[in-house]
Amino acid sequence: MFNFEYFTPTEVCFGKGTVERTGEYVKKYHGTKVLIHYGGGSIVRTGLLERMKKSLDDAGIAHVELGGVVPNPHLSKVYEGIELCRKEKVDFLLAVGGGSVIDSVKAIGYGLANEGDVWDFFEHTRMADACMPLGCVLTIAAAGSEMSNSAVITKEDEDKKRAYDDDASRPKFAIMDPELTMTLPDYQTACGCTDMLMHTEERYFTNGGNMEITDSMAEALMRTVIKYARVLAKEPQNYEARAEVMWAGSLAHNGLTGCGNDGGDFASHMLEHELGGMFDVAHGAGLSAIWPSWARYVCGDCLPRFKQYALNVMGCENKGTDEEIALAGIEAMEEFYRAIGMPTTMKELGIEPTEEQILEMAHRCALATGGQIGSAKALKEEDMAEIYRMAR
Amino acid sequence: MFNFEYFTPTEVCFGKGTVERTGEYVKKYHGTKVLIHYGGGSIVRTGLLERMKKSLDDAGIAHVELGGVVPNPHLSKVYEGIELCRKEKVDFLLAVGGGSVIDSVKAIGYGLANEGDVWDFFEHTRMADACMPLGCVLTIAAAGSEMSNSAVITKEDEDKKRAYDDDASRPKFAIMDPELTMTLPDYQTACGCTDMLMHTEERYFTNGGNMEITDSMAEALMRTVIKYARVLAKEPQNYEARAEVMWAGSLAHNGLTGCGNDGGDFASHMLEHELGGMFDVAHGAGLSAIWPSWARYVCGDCLPRFKQYALNVMGCENKGTDEEIALAGIEAMEEFYRAIGMPTTMKELGIEPTEEQILEMAHRCALATGGQIGSAKALKEEDMAEIYRMAR
Repeated sequence: MFNFEYFTPTEVCFGKGTVERTGEYVKKYHGTKVLIHYGGGSIVRTGLLERMKKSLDDAGIAHVELGGVVPNPHLSKVYEGIELCRKEKVDFLLAVGGGSVIDSVKAIGYGLANEGDVWDFFEHTRMADACMPLGCVLTIAAAGSEMSNSAVITKEDEDKKRAYDDDASRPKFAIMDPELTMTLPDYQTACGCTDMLMHTEERYFTNGGNMEITDSMAEALMRTVIKYARVLAKEPQNYEARAEVMWAGSLAHNGLTGCGNDGGDFASHMLEHELGGMFDVAHGAGLSAIWPSWARYVCGDCLPRFKQYALNVMGCENKGTDEEIALAGIEAMEEFYRAIGMPTTMKELGIEPTEEQILEMAHRCALATGGQIGSAKALKEEDMAEIYRMAR
Repeated sequence: MFNFEYFTPTEVCFGKGTVERTGEYVKKYHGTKVLIHYGGGSIVRTGLLERMKKSLDDAGIAHVELGGVVPNPHLSKVYEGIELCRKEKVDFLLAVGGGSVIDSVKAIGYGLANEGDVWDFFEHTRMADACMPLGCVLTIAAAGSEMSNSAVITKEDEDKKRAYDDDASRPKFAIMDPELTMTLPDYQTACGCTDMLMHTEERYFTNGGNMEITDSMAEALMRTVIKYARVLAKEPQNYEARAEVMWAGSLAHNGLTGCGNDGGDFASHMLEHELGGMFDVAHGAGLSAIWPSWARYVCGDCLPRFKQYALNVMGCENKGTDEEIALAGIEAMEEFYRAIGMPTTMKELGIEPTEEQILEMAHRCALATGGQIGSAKALKEEDMAEIYRMAR
């Protein structure tokens, strides 16, 4: 067991009709002029933007808008947001969307609260001093960015996808109405469930010490997500299922599922970041395409945890050798991914990287991780390349 | 499932040697002159007070001291603290101890940040506008006050024990070093484990809607506490067990185990408050003395939850009628309490209230709860009296 710090200051307002409380929450955190940051036109089409604006108007809060955030959000949009906010003298940032929009708003927040180029933080050449206060109205249950301290931005002209973690960027509040997620395409719902599962798994598969209460709560969370992801594949309008999954997404990435561990593995995420940087795939689908190959490659080095996962999360029978049980758990996970329409290889994902591209991704991943990453098994550049090859 | 708000801004610093970071954390939250508030002389004897003072000195933070907080902390001590802090121009409050000391510091914080008599808040005749910032160094895993928004104070001259909940009082930080709890007497360790179990059970036994992820995480938490309370009864120096229980105590009362439910039951707590007010018993022991009688009295009205508890927490067999399974769960809980040296009746607790005293406690409990409390079963004054009688 390791010492840990746990800090989740985000005020969560969860449930039906909570969007109407947006203005109240912005006011509580002293916002007077807000940037409404969002992605595509769905928040316009569904009327969500109007509901939010009314809530802000009712609270006497001025607002400007910037849409157009894409999945794997672009640095250029961040620059655009910083410029707009400076010009408009915005003092509070509001993300309306999923992880991409929230990450984009966090990056804008860093840009506004610090001198110089915001990309420096994502290259880890310096640390941010602060971040402009921000809140979010969540419309996709997936990334957990609504309570997390991390942001991932893509420098699109260099195919670079980089993460920066800093408590200064944790949202002041998160409005979470599960009804907002009911109109998501099935594929996106499944991608989201995959992402939150992976956030928990990254912290779960470790060879460092661990804490039993963290493990057992993480297992409870994963069982819940797996159960309700299957429900949502058939009943996308099921409110209870939407709510279970939405809250799980936040808890999966706010730090709770890592308390007392060694920091987690996170190799799958880093491998996917390079995939996402090169091919612009949906993050969740990229993760499910990589994970089975990663799991097979590393499980021999982390057998007790893979066995525990098979038994306590996937409900496998306690029969056979530890290797057999571990493998049954991985296979059950693949079966689950297929059941919700997620790929388990890159081919199923629709991409077939060449050997050169694989070597390039592995090289970039090694660079981004300082040469090595992973707790279940420490991976170097050649391991990364091999996992990409296995995942073809 | 209900809408909910979740807000746990307390920064947790958990693990061995974290006491030495006290000064760093006070500084982070802008404290320049601190009240060190504590209970008996144990923090002096164990050298903890000196370690903390050194950490504050190293950070250039001035300090004054006020000890003498008792279990079921007294209003008179709160007044004393308010007066001392005003005189000494204290700007940050530091509790060193368990729930009683933290609750006392919260009450002092309300007193300092508001005009008029601080007892008004505990009588709910008005709400606090603010609370002076406070932090804590936890030495007893039990009450969960280190992350909660509640404080319970006893007006000793009127035998009144009252709670006041307000987010303004949530500690800015909690230093949690499991090693500090190793010198606790076994009885106090067991009382603490009982208290945190009860915080979870109060939220678990409801007839309102519920959320599966909350339930399954609560069940995980309770199983962990029950397992490690048994370990600690035999190996009080077991660090891992101390750590599991300490973190469980915070999670049991920071709101996590109640997300999506109807607010919980909390009848056992209110019944115990009157017991504690009249007889000055240890809170955890008072709870275990009341709970089995409460459970038997209400379980017929909340059978699905009692059955689920028996199966998922107490590991009972799924055999027999629902009533039989529910009862087996209650009996397993009684067996657990006895195994860790906790009473399951008031007689075992060493008190034998007269019928007049029972009626008086029931009357006071009804007054304190506005005439009725409970979600598993709504209890009125006559129900409260009957539960006290059953618990004799």
